[in-house]
Parts: sequence; structure tokens; C-alpha cells
Amino acid sequence: MNSSLSSKTLPTIADVETAARRIAGQAIETPLLESPGLNQRIGGRVLIKPELLQRTGSFKFRGAFNKIKHLVEQGGGQGGVVAYSSGNHAQGVAAAAQLLGLPATIVMPSDAPAIKLGNTRGYGAEVVLYDRLKENREAIAGEIAAKRKATIVPPFDDIDIIAGQGTAGLEMARQTKALGATLDAALLPCGGGGLISGSTLALQATWPKLPVYSCEPVGFDDTKRSLAVHKRLPVEPGAKSICDGLLSPIPGEMTFALNDRNLAGGFALSDDEVLAAMSFAFRVMKLVLEPSGAVGLAALLTGRFDGKGKTVGLLCSGGNVDPDVFARCLALPA
Amino acid sequence: MNSSLSSKTLPTIADVETAARRIAGQAIETPLLESPGLNQRIGGRVLIKPELLQRTGSFKFRGAFNKIKHLVEQGGGQGGVVAYSSGNHAQGVAAAAQLLGLPATIVMPSDAPAIKLGNTRGYGAEVVLYDRLKENREAIAGEIAAKRKATIVPPFDDIDIIAGQGTAGLEMARQTKALGATLDAALLPCGGGGLISGSTLALQATWPKLPVYSCEPVGFDDTKRSLAVHKRLPVEPGAKSICDGLLSPIPGEMTFALNDRNLAGGFALSDDEVLAAMSFAFRVMKLVLEPSGAVGLAALLTGRFDGKGKTVGLLCSGGNVDPDVFARCLALPA
Repeated sequence: MNSSLSSKTLPTIADVETAARRIAGQAIETPLLESPGLNQRIGGRVLIKPELLQRTGSFKFRGAFNKIKHLVEQGGGQGGVVAYSSGNHAQGVAAAAQLLGLPATIVMPSDAPAIKLGNTRGYGAEVVLYDRLKENREAIAGEIAAKRKATIVPPFDDIDIIAGQGTAGLEMARQTKALGATLDAALLPCGGGGLISGSTLALQATWPKLPVYSCEPVGFDDTKRSLAVHKRLPVEPGAKSICDGLLSPIPGEMTFALNDRNLAGGFALSDDEVLAAMSFAFRVMKLVLEPSGAVGLAALLTGRFDGKGKTVGLLCSGGNVDPDVFARCLALPA
Repeated sequence: MNSSLSSKTLPTIADVETAARRIAGQAIETPLLESPGLNQRIGGRVLIKPELLQRTGSFKFRGAFNKIKHLVEQGGGQGGVVAYSSGNHAQGVAAAAQLLGLPATIVMPSDAPAIKLGNTRGYGAEVVLYDRLKENREAIAGEIAAKRKATIVPPFDDIDIIAGQGTAGLEMARQTKALGATLDAALLPCGGGGLISGSTLALQATWPKLPVYSCEPVGFDDTKRSLAVHKRLPVEPGAKSICDGLLSPIPGEMTFALNDRNLAGGFALSDDEVLAAMSFAFRVMKLVLEPSGAVGLAALLTGRFDGKGKTVGLLCSGGNVDPDVFARCLALPA
């Protein structure tokens, strides 16, 4: 665990439960799905939390709404909000701010998927583009926030963001229990680590010893490698991946403090494995997964995690994928 | 109403409720979804019943399982089952027979989507191909059934099939009430009419005056035209459509007797309108719809049915679409 953070400064299950009350009626309670075709393929039971069905097409709305609502409850937010994001956090912040009546400015890489750029503008946000390879998005966002007296909504390393994303895990635990089932393991995507750290708080509040695994793109498996040495390591220099939502350069301080304590390990998936999982989701599950949303499914389908005879919680985090990328998975043989 | 059928020979809500008990634990209770993006586009509230998430990727499993289970309950089925189908009924019958331990033979057109042919074989059925333009599938199925002492599972004109498909409407009614909502209208695809006639029994058991509309491909809008003159009319000669699940040549006797009594009217959708709806489902709803499953959504998106200010039940019947057809919808501008 990171020594610079005490337990006091980290979110707890109580924060996740507070977040669940804040987002109720605004976030969608996504269903817990089961696919006979996937169960058969794995030889186990997979309970799928499809956050692609969430408002804005990914789980990110949960954390963004929790953060901004909390800000408004505390009397803040008059200057609006600012965020930097490759796309899904951008859409989450833009939609949450729109629902709460605050202006939003989003700093986005100029090579973000067109669908994410368009949708962010569609939720009424102002989009400021930057060059991902040459410019520093935090610095750009900081300047804008200072100029406009706006509040920055960070993508993951924040109590309210982690707690908000954790509501996905809270629902997964409750919905699994409602089926009379018990999870043997859970697989979640991991970029900066907000979703998995918050959701694990909620899942382990129900099943304290539940093994939860991070799923990351090859080259961006910084959390997997960091877990092995109990120390935050950056991503590999020059790494590339189609998982545009999972490219953050190093695990978050808060998220890794939680993940180092709570996760059982991690898996790294290649672009080809991710595309094959997207294809399976199209053919068998009938769900549109974006690359970042398909890493957990890829861990199952490749056997990297052996689900045979197990009940596995699988979180599919989003479905905001450009048609040309989706066409690549369609072209794969079944 | 067709004078050759008395009310006694038609299914009732009691048959749908019996079917719901028979399929419980085997069919998936698909969730009732809501898409903020679709609601915003329509200016109303659309409650989506996504039967693409059903076992075999379409609602057809419901009727097939109900029919075959009933047969087994009556001591029949030893010679197996035979069906003729362009694909989704084939998969439904094959999967139901496999679960109930009966051999299944399916007569399918040689131009059926590859995904449907492959899946049908995947459920353990023997597939017999025929030429849709030159051969009579009913005759081929009849010969096979006679030779093997097997039972034919008809695609729609059958009490157990209609009642089984009607469980989709039964769930939609119950799930809508659980939300504290009331439907103002419902839109369902219509081929032979099994799904819509059975589901309307269930929906109107809850809301007796609910207007329910059939959605059909242009040229195959035989139910729409038949409703207008209260007489079964065939499809237009030489008509073509990408909606391969909705090409039956004339409304069923039983299904039309029910539909003529219960439906409010119908809509006919072109291939381009259906592809645009599939594209919307991909981009906004993150669901994989096959053409036949998208006709109701097309009726909403085109404004053919004006959903503004209304709560609309929308049944999306399946997601078994070949990648090359799906690629056509991906290529459309947003």
C-alpha cells in the first residue's frame, strides 16, 4: 500500500452507499445479464454487468454525477466544471453537468474516437482539443479552471469519483444475491483504477474474500505489474492499444492504495484478443462493446482466467466505439 | 375476424400464463431497458424489451420451448421434432429440443443468414436445405415428419407457439407496472403474427384498450393491409426485404383472427429505414439488432408512430444478423 495515503483519506463502502443514493434516478441501474452462449463457452456461469447500457454509454456517468452533485450539495459549482478525458469520462461529466445545470468544458485529445467527441458536444459541453503526444492535458485543464473559477472533475483519483464508479459493483453484488448466487471471482477493466477500486469495495463488502482481477491492455498493464511489486509503476514507453479508455500512464495514488490492498492480481490482453471478444459479444451476446469494455470478456475467452465451474462477475464498462473499429471485429472469422 | 375460427380454438391469456410457467428457468426473463438517448430523440419514454438477449438471440425460443415441453408433458415427442424456418424459429426449436433431449430436424432456405444456419447446427439439430423460390418447405417438413414419426413445430399458427411468444408481452406488462408506468402504445414486429398476437393478449390483459401496432417490411405488410379490410391478404408478389425473419407470405389464420380483433393498425418500413434504426441501436442503445428486430424502432425513429409525450412499449425481437449486413448499417452516417 502506498505509504503517503492513510486509510482516512481513502473512500470506504459508506462512500459508495452515499454515492448510490446521490445517483439514484439519474444513473440507470443496469441489469445483470446472462448469456447461455457465453456460459456454455466458459463452462461456468458469467453474470454480466453491461455498463454500455448506462447513460452516456459507459459507467463514467456514475462517478461524474456523484462528484458534481456532491459539489452542488456543498454550495459549489457556480463556475462550472472542467475535465480532461479521452472520451468516456468526458461524456459522463458533460451529461452530469447538463443534468445539474452547470457549464462544462472538456479537454480531449484530438485523436479521441469521433463518437466520443460528438457525444460530448451533444451533452452541451465545450470541447477543447489538445495533442496527446505534445501537450499536458492536466495543465490545460488547470489553466481553464483557474481562469473560469471552475472545478476540475478528475478522472479517477478522487473519493467521489471512486465511490461513484463503485456503485456499479454495489449493484452487481445486490443483483447477484437477488439471483440466489454467490460470486467466485470478478473481472473488471482497469485504466486509472477508479471503477475497479470502488467496485471492489462494494463487492468485498458482500464477499470479503472475493478475488477481483484487473484487466488491462498489453503495454498498459501498469496495475498488474504494480500489484506484483506493491509499488506504482508507469506504463511501458511507446505502448499502443485500441483500448482508448485504458491508456492512463500510471495507476492513481488513491486507486492503487485500494487496489494493492484488495485485488487478487491482473491480466493483460492484446488488441487481437480484445477484438475477438468484441466479435463474440456481437455474435453471441448481442451487445456492442468498445475495446476497453471487452478486456474482461477477453480474459475469460482466452482462458487467461479459467471460469470453468465458477460463477464470475464480469463488468463490461462501455460501448462507445467508432464504426470503423467495430467493423474490424465484424471482419474476424467466427 | 376470420369466420372459420371460433374463439374456442384461439389462445387466451390463460394459455400465455401457462406458457410462462412452462418456460420459467429455461427462457431468459429479458430485462426492460430504457435508453436516455432514445427517449431524448423521441421526446417520450420508450420501454425496450430486448429479445436479442433471449436464449438463441431471439424471442422464438419462448414459443418453441412451450410447444415442445407441452408435447413432452402429453407423452409425445419420441420421434423428435421437425420445423421449417428462415432461421430464428429454427434456432429456437433446435435449442428447445436439445434442452428437452429430443432430436430436431430443421428445414431451412439455402439463402438463410450463415449465422442462423451455423447456430441451428450448433444446437445439435440436423439442417435440411431447400430452395426458397422453387421448393415448398411445408411439404418437405411434412415428408420428414411422416417418415420419422416426428412432430412438426409450426412457426406461428399454433396455440402453444402463440402463447409462448406471448410471454414476452406478459413480462413487458409486468416489468412496466413494476416501474410504476403505464403504456400508451406498443410496437411489435409482425411476420406470421405469433409474437404480436400472443403478446397483445398479455398486454391487453393489463391495459384492455392499449393500442398495439404491427411493424412490417414494405412489401411484406400483409398484416397491415389485411387489418384494413378485415381479410387475410398475401404479401406483394416479388417483394424483397432485408428483414429475413418477417417474410411469411400471408398472415396466419389463428394469428390474424386475434390480430384483426386486437390490433390498432400497422406500419411498413423500408430497408433503408430499418438499417438506420440498426445504426441508431448500435450508436446510441449499444444493442445488436437484426433487421427484423429493428422494425419497431424504425417506426419510432421515422415518426411513422409519433411517440412524443407517450410511454411506448417497444419489442426488439432478435439480434441474429450476419456481419456483412451489420457492416451496411455501420457505414451509414450518424
